[in-house]
Amino acid sequence: MDRYSDYRRIGRDMGVDAIALVPGANFRRLYDASFHSHERPLVVVLPVEGAPAAIVPNLELRSFDALGFEGAVFDWRDQDGYDGAFAALAAHLPLSSLAVEGQVMRVFVHHALARAFPGLDIRDAEREISGLRRRKSAGEIAALERAIAISEAALDETLTQVRAGMTEAEVESLLTAALFAGGAEAHAFGPIVAAGANSALPHAHARADYPIRPGDALLFDFGARWGGLNADITRTVFVGHAADEAQAVYETVLAANRAGIAATRPGQSAHDIDEATTGVLEASAFADRIRHKTGHGLGRAVHEAPQIMRGNHETIEPGMVFTVEPGLYLPDAFGIRIEDDMLVTETGGRSLTSYPKELTVVGQC
Amino acid sequence: MDRYSDYRRIGRDMGVDAIALVPGANFRRLYDASFHSHERPLVVVLPVEGAPAAIVPNLELRSFDALGFEGAVFDWRDQDGYDGAFAALAAHLPLSSLAVEGQVMRVFVHHALARAFPGLDIRDAEREISGLRRRKSAGEIAALERAIAISEAALDETLTQVRAGMTEAEVESLLTAALFAGGAEAHAFGPIVAAGANSALPHAHARADYPIRPGDALLFDFGARWGGLNADITRTVFVGHAADEAQAVYETVLAANRAGIAATRPGQSAHDIDEATTGVLEASAFADRIRHKTGHGLGRAVHEAPQIMRGNHETIEPGMVFTVEPGLYLPDAFGIRIEDDMLVTETGGRSLTSYPKELTVVGQC
Repeated sequence: MDRYSDYRRIGRDMGVDAIALVPGANFRRLYDASFHSHERPLVVVLPVEGAPAAIVPNLELRSFDALGFEGAVFDWRDQDGYDGAFAALAAHLPLSSLAVEGQVMRVFVHHALARAFPGLDIRDAEREISGLRRRKSAGEIAALERAIAISEAALDETLTQVRAGMTEAEVESLLTAALFAGGAEAHAFGPIVAAGANSALPHAHARADYPIRPGDALLFDFGARWGGLNADITRTVFVGHAADEAQAVYETVLAANRAGIAATRPGQSAHDIDEATTGVLEASAFADRIRHKTGHGLGRAVHEAPQIMRGNHETIEPGMVFTVEPGLYLPDAFGIRIEDDMLVTETGGRSLTSYPKELTVVGQC
Repeated sequence: MDRYSDYRRIGRDMGVDAIALVPGANFRRLYDASFHSHERPLVVVLPVEGAPAAIVPNLELRSFDALGFEGAVFDWRDQDGYDGAFAALAAHLPLSSLAVEGQVMRVFVHHALARAFPGLDIRDAEREISGLRRRKSAGEIAALERAIAISEAALDETLTQVRAGMTEAEVESLLTAALFAGGAEAHAFGPIVAAGANSALPHAHARADYPIRPGDALLFDFGARWGGLNADITRTVFVGHAADEAQAVYETVLAANRAGIAATRPGQSAHDIDEATTGVLEASAFADRIRHKTGHGLGRAVHEAPQIMRGNHETIEPGMVFTVEPGLYLPDAFGIRIEDDMLVTETGGRSLTSYPKELTVVGQC
């Protein structure tokens, strides 16, 4: 069994000649190496039979050599452009069909492939290829735990400093500084720090011109990356005090979060877990405030399989990691979201996140 | 003149029915707003005549509303998938040809468009669309200057702490903490901190298991993002002392960097500036150690037009910003790169970066 056997199997199952990988989470899983990509195509082609081949920017050749790559490499230089390398690849390894990562490969690479291989049938195998990342290794889980520990410590440090009158941007700066001081290698994604009405936007951006007011909900959705794995945690607190309606919404979301966690075990489907979670929201007085599914897989990418949503009947298996992040959003008023990262075990689920989630009021000094 | 006039002109010049934009640097330039994209397509279609239209994930609708969008919006929900929204767009706005950002749009969106608009001619207009970002506004230049100031202050703080025996990863942590403490909103890109033989790899990754040794070259290639604009600066210093050969290589690269800066003025071509810069390297005893072009445009994306390389005969114009970053790489020994960010003025060029670049030895306590 070579290191490409999973990919060759996907290719055979799909009836294509080969799989193509470009730099990104799947590439990192396979080679434990990352490459800048930008405007310079780097493509690895893994045929269902025989040796792989690659297109590599000349300036990356030495880094690429470190992968112990087993096949032909066609390099290209900035001044020459890359079409010649794609043509050489096509002459070396004729293909009539190719499966690609549809959410990673960009159109200019698709077009370069189409020019070099006339009539090539390019199929989207995002689901199948990224699906290989569903079950996490022990090393990946350990890295994720560290990413989460860094994230929770940073949130803790930030919350002790939050006061009414600060802006969201100031709070985000505190959070960011704490994350990196704690050892984060990157933000897992652009963090969300949103207060008051801004928290009602699921993907809000921090404002530098809005002083947080007493009574505001304050939503943090963020994570550290460590060892290539991404944490993703959401907590919503209140500044100064929490109004009655806000408390009621909070308790509803918390009950949904807990229901999703309780429903997490092998043999359930992603659909079932969304049913359990979103069902709590739907049974509440705030059913019309639902805006999104329960969650998503988490690992080398922030959003990956399995999507925890209705209609996704894939079976939950040990080693999967996904978010449970119900939310309710009252436009122009506030939003509440509570997100944990669940590891599926042999017998149930274990939350890798452990930051307290009882209703919390900060900034009361 | 509406805010789409530049895009309509590109469409007319290319003879296509419309331009499509997806979240990224061009989208941010147009709308001053950014969206998470991941697995959820968000596409704006700008026809050469008439009102635009958009496909928007339902959970982004309220954020999207803030753009003051002028046309029809087709939203879709996770549980339904997005093909229906693309079909509705196709019924509303029939197209036979569409120009897209080839380096930004991913294949799954390309495929969704091809399914909804049978026979659609999808052309790569990366060069034309991103070309609108070539000339920076005064606001963009001010943001870039702040990003650079944060970056240079962080480098300065880091260099005072570097000692032989530290690992590259430890130095990178110091740099990262200083960047965020100084107000960076993000890393412009994954920073490069590379010592000794690792510095000979143009896109090296920091090692946690290599203690930096006296005499090592230590290369920093990094930048802060601030206000959506990206700094990109490289400095190479020596730890403890610098060997004679290393000094000779350093002075050659520095001379090339200065030649590139001196050649920067309106009316020159990108080709000319690469000639001036790389010409110095080629005339040296180290001509066989050249690995890459002189530089690239810089702004809302880290790599954008104009590419400063031979064969690119586009004219340099006031308001452009690009890097001048010659390098020489001695495999298994060391690499030297010195990178500044040049703004083209009406009469010449002004380096936005000002960190000292005379040969520097650090860690001599």
